[in-house]
Amino acid sequence: MITRMSHLFVRTLREDPADAEVPSHRWLVRAGYIRRVAPGIYSWLPLGLRVLHRVEEIVREEMNAIGAQEVLFPALLPAEPYKATNRWTEYGDTLFRLVDRKGSDMLLGPTHEEMFTLMAKDQCSSYKELPLTLYQIQIKYRDEARPRAGILRGREFVMKDSYSFDIDKAGLDASYQAHRAAYIRVFDRLGFDYVIVQANSGAMGGSASEEFLAVSPNGEDTFVRSPGGYAANVEAVQRPLAAEVDASDVPAAQKHATPDSPTIDTLVAQANALFPRADRQWVAHDTLKNVIFNLRQPDGTVEPLAIGLPGDREVDDTRLAAAVSPAEVEAFSEEDFEKFPQLAKGYIGPAGLKAAGVRYLLDPEVVPGTAWLTGADTAGYHVINLVAGRDFQIDGHLDVAVLRDGDQAPDGSGPLSLARGIEMGHIFELGTKYAEALGLKVLDADGKLQTVTMGSYGIGVSRAVAVVAEATCDDKGLCWPRSLAPFDVMVVATGKGDEIAEAAEKLAADLDASGVSVLLDDRKASPGVKFKDSEILGTPTCVVVGRALAQGNVEIRDRRSGRARLVPLADALPEVLTEIEI
Amino acid sequence: MITRMSHLFVRTLREDPADAEVPSHRWLVRAGYIRRVAPGIYSWLPLGLRVLHRVEEIVREEMNAIGAQEVLFPALLPAEPYKATNRWTEYGDTLFRLVDRKGSDMLLGPTHEEMFTLMAKDQCSSYKELPLTLYQIQIKYRDEARPRAGILRGREFVMKDSYSFDIDKAGLDASYQAHRAAYIRVFDRLGFDYVIVQANSGAMGGSASEEFLAVSPNGEDTFVRSPGGYAANVEAVQRPLAAEVDASDVPAAQKHATPDSPTIDTLVAQANALFPRADRQWVAHDTLKNVIFNLRQPDGTVEPLAIGLPGDREVDDTRLAAAVSPAEVEAFSEEDFEKFPQLAKGYIGPAGLKAAGVRYLLDPEVVPGTAWLTGADTAGYHVINLVAGRDFQIDGHLDVAVLRDGDQAPDGSGPLSLARGIEMGHIFELGTKYAEALGLKVLDADGKLQTVTMGSYGIGVSRAVAVVAEATCDDKGLCWPRSLAPFDVMVVATGKGDEIAEAAEKLAADLDASGVSVLLDDRKASPGVKFKDSEILGTPTCVVVGRALAQGNVEIRDRRSGRARLVPLADALPEVLTEIEI
Repeated sequence: MITRMSHLFVRTLREDPADAEVPSHRWLVRAGYIRRVAPGIYSWLPLGLRVLHRVEEIVREEMNAIGAQEVLFPALLPAEPYKATNRWTEYGDTLFRLVDRKGSDMLLGPTHEEMFTLMAKDQCSSYKELPLTLYQIQIKYRDEARPRAGILRGREFVMKDSYSFDIDKAGLDASYQAHRAAYIRVFDRLGFDYVIVQANSGAMGGSASEEFLAVSPNGEDTFVRSPGGYAANVEAVQRPLAAEVDASDVPAAQKHATPDSPTIDTLVAQANALFPRADRQWVAHDTLKNVIFNLRQPDGTVEPLAIGLPGDREVDDTRLAAAVSPAEVEAFSEEDFEKFPQLAKGYIGPAGLKAAGVRYLLDPEVVPGTAWLTGADTAGYHVINLVAGRDFQIDGHLDVAVLRDGDQAPDGSGPLSLARGIEMGHIFELGTKYAEALGLKVLDADGKLQTVTMGSYGIGVSRAVAVVAEATCDDKGLCWPRSLAPFDVMVVATGKGDEIAEAAEKLAADLDASGVSVLLDDRKASPGVKFKDSEILGTPTCVVVGRALAQGNVEIRDRRSGRARLVPLADALPEVLTEIEI
Repeated sequence: MITRMSHLFVRTLREDPADAEVPSHRWLVRAGYIRRVAPGIYSWLPLGLRVLHRVEEIVREEMNAIGAQEVLFPALLPAEPYKATNRWTEYGDTLFRLVDRKGSDMLLGPTHEEMFTLMAKDQCSSYKELPLTLYQIQIKYRDEARPRAGILRGREFVMKDSYSFDIDKAGLDASYQAHRAAYIRVFDRLGFDYVIVQANSGAMGGSASEEFLAVSPNGEDTFVRSPGGYAANVEAVQRPLAAEVDASDVPAAQKHATPDSPTIDTLVAQANALFPRADRQWVAHDTLKNVIFNLRQPDGTVEPLAIGLPGDREVDDTRLAAAVSPAEVEAFSEEDFEKFPQLAKGYIGPAGLKAAGVRYLLDPEVVPGTAWLTGADTAGYHVINLVAGRDFQIDGHLDVAVLRDGDQAPDGSGPLSLARGIEMGHIFELGTKYAEALGLKVLDADGKLQTVTMGSYGIGVSRAVAVVAEATCDDKGLCWPRSLAPFDVMVVATGKGDEIAEAAEKLAADLDASGVSVLLDDRKASPGVKFKDSEILGTPTCVVVGRALAQGNVEIRDRRSGRARLVPLADALPEVLTEIEI
């Protein structure tokens, strides 16, 4: 069936929407693909929905191809399973909670680990029923603090989530690898530049976890990669420990008055003025900055944590949050300082932290033998030549500093460089966490009950529409790859005269009969308006039936390259079919 | 791709689920199509989801065929538009309400008139853009007081809702008729017995409104039909007014003591004992029962309403609720009686109601000249020969009595008979209600702003799965029509031996290659288990590859008729293709 612009429910906008921060958002709204209903909540108009359905179909095909079975869970869920795993609390304000007319706690599912675990528990009793992989393409809800960029980070969004169930780790690894391969096929077919990054550092004892990030300057996530092929999100990176240093000729630690030097800059200036080094200037990297936070555990208990890192580094909030999760980071307040008189604000040193009994973890650069200029636990005083392992004890390391270009990859594959990306997929070996919490056990080959081991895998389906739009749009509008375009071909009739309208109608009908999806611009509008709309809408191929028809020709335009060529009307059908490879 | 029972995520149950009230619910659960997550909230397992998707595809095709355009709205919606139309309040406890992290009121959409109206307002400015019909296949939420019968009345369910936008009534009528025709095609294709009933009585001044009811003894809705072709739901019926009676020889009204006669039965007994009629016994139909309620208006005001009807009739709560909507019916309490001393509980009469200033509406059988035995407004007293129009005034009629077989159709087409049905579709000329409330106007041909007129149309998509299951299942399990079956054919291999397994595999592969969807039962299980499962699952055609193969035959079984016939293995493929008409 030919779709006609005169009938299609679309109104392109000549102006950018006021709230559009990124190109994909701007063009999806201007081209009439989506409309905002509330912050982070969008409607899909006919063109947008066609693209969304195409993404869904690609994901469905590749999931089916690895033997995953499609199911569909409700979005509105009872609270009990999420209370059993503690996520009812852990999700904090991100969870949409409600109460039904009977007073039962309910939630809008942010992800469905609990529900799938319970479904497998309901249906499976033997290892013979495993391996099992289930998936759904379903609407998820997260009450994001800062929904942004249209459908790139929404509060209601479509996700493909799947879950694998295996009797042992070898099975889980196989399920994980099958998903990894399927995701590569999905993202290759969607057609954007992506990178697979480690999302979980081995150092934290976690299982395999990788993210598929669309490489994009507008991405919210920072990731790193090395020339040797290492790639990870910043949360997963553990910089290697620096080499130990021989400190045998470092003089004894010495305390100095450093009036009014609560910041690294003022401290370095004071040091160079009051007790200059013989060999070179003091620099920020010579200082050991001790930062203190409170950690609130899920059970409500709060305890302080101090991190010592070179003064030229900052703590990365995202990395810190990931490292201490599920605990939450809170500020260490003036009242907290009053509770710990051993700590002098702005002048905290290792000795004060030890006296106060505060847990103290060090940056990987702070290793035995390194000497530091750091706080002397008295306002207005610092200490120099304080040697790690000699003058204070190293109880452990925690790498949560902001990463920099040139930091070394953990696997020795060279210096890291930073880039930005958008999380499009996540594959994760969950292990037995949910199966244990909810009692999912099956009989193994020996007839013994054994806890099932699970994987969890997600693709942002609605987000993919924005990511592909972002990766492919240009300064004229959307510019879809053939795999996702709402229509294969747009036929634009320009100029007056029955011959033009008739030729355009016939070409559109012939294309339609050949299995090509066609959008026919049959409106009474100027060629300029029609060309502009065809560019904004982003159909990959456009056939213009207009002035050239007088010489028996039509024009085939390629949206991406902008190239146009004249072909005889009689050749238009085979030429277009060749171009779009049907 | 062949689906294998050894791999399929399904576990059939030998026992009925405890909460299953109707056959469709029982079998959909037992056959592993759906699973309960919370009251009125279900998950779709692979087999169920296949059927759901088939229903969706049929609905989508027929909606596209009438030029309706598919969009998709969020389920999570801002409250403002629903406050503007007052439905935020009117929906009462049926609406799932929540508050987001910023404190904004939100809701889970029970239906989307407001949102579609706003979308049209955002995109349309001229009558030239009309007629316009938009639809979505989307998940809806209603916090039903009594969710029941599995997915027949759920709290989360899939609905196709569409909305038409026209510049005038003629356009609306055309859009309405196009939907009516599309719905007939949809329900014919789904394959169940349905009836189209009036859902809105002309007497109430409403626009066209019809429901498509699946005829089912387990239906929640009662409808009526006449031999002359009239059909309506009970809310829409207005019984014709009875013929007026000449009361010139009825004696004057007379008061009688009727001690302890607060009910119709006790009253009739007392009357026959204390003041017998000369011509015949007093019967319940001679009495005029006056029932009093409170009506709570949406603005919170409450006022009483009395209904007078023959004593052998009861008030139908559903009809009353529909008649007074959007007001809600509440009980008239002891305290209310104290406020109206003119009303004697159990002995209310027209005089007392008039004295109390209570609005009093009469059943269509209470017409001028009819004489009644009714309350005398004093405890223990009734009055006889109280003639309507002579002894008390008729201020209006309201037909909210429980209907009975034999009541007359409003259009004179004969006596009504009652039946039960399940609402599957509803088409409704909304008119300008929402367009006015939300300001949807476009320029008409004269360049004047004109309010758009709308229609609203719904199909219960997930409910259709249950309705078809209900209409087609038998005492062995589900029994799908070909249009909805999760698989076209099930191939069951029974008995040992490689030849059997290989022949079954080959037949399944050949069918698959011919475009038939195949479920192959390749499990190591007894023939009895396999046959029972194949019956429960309800695939229309089953091919058994088993003992008969020794003679070169396989058995083709028809699930509905139970008929089985042997055919040579070599003929199985064409025979099956003929049977399923591919």
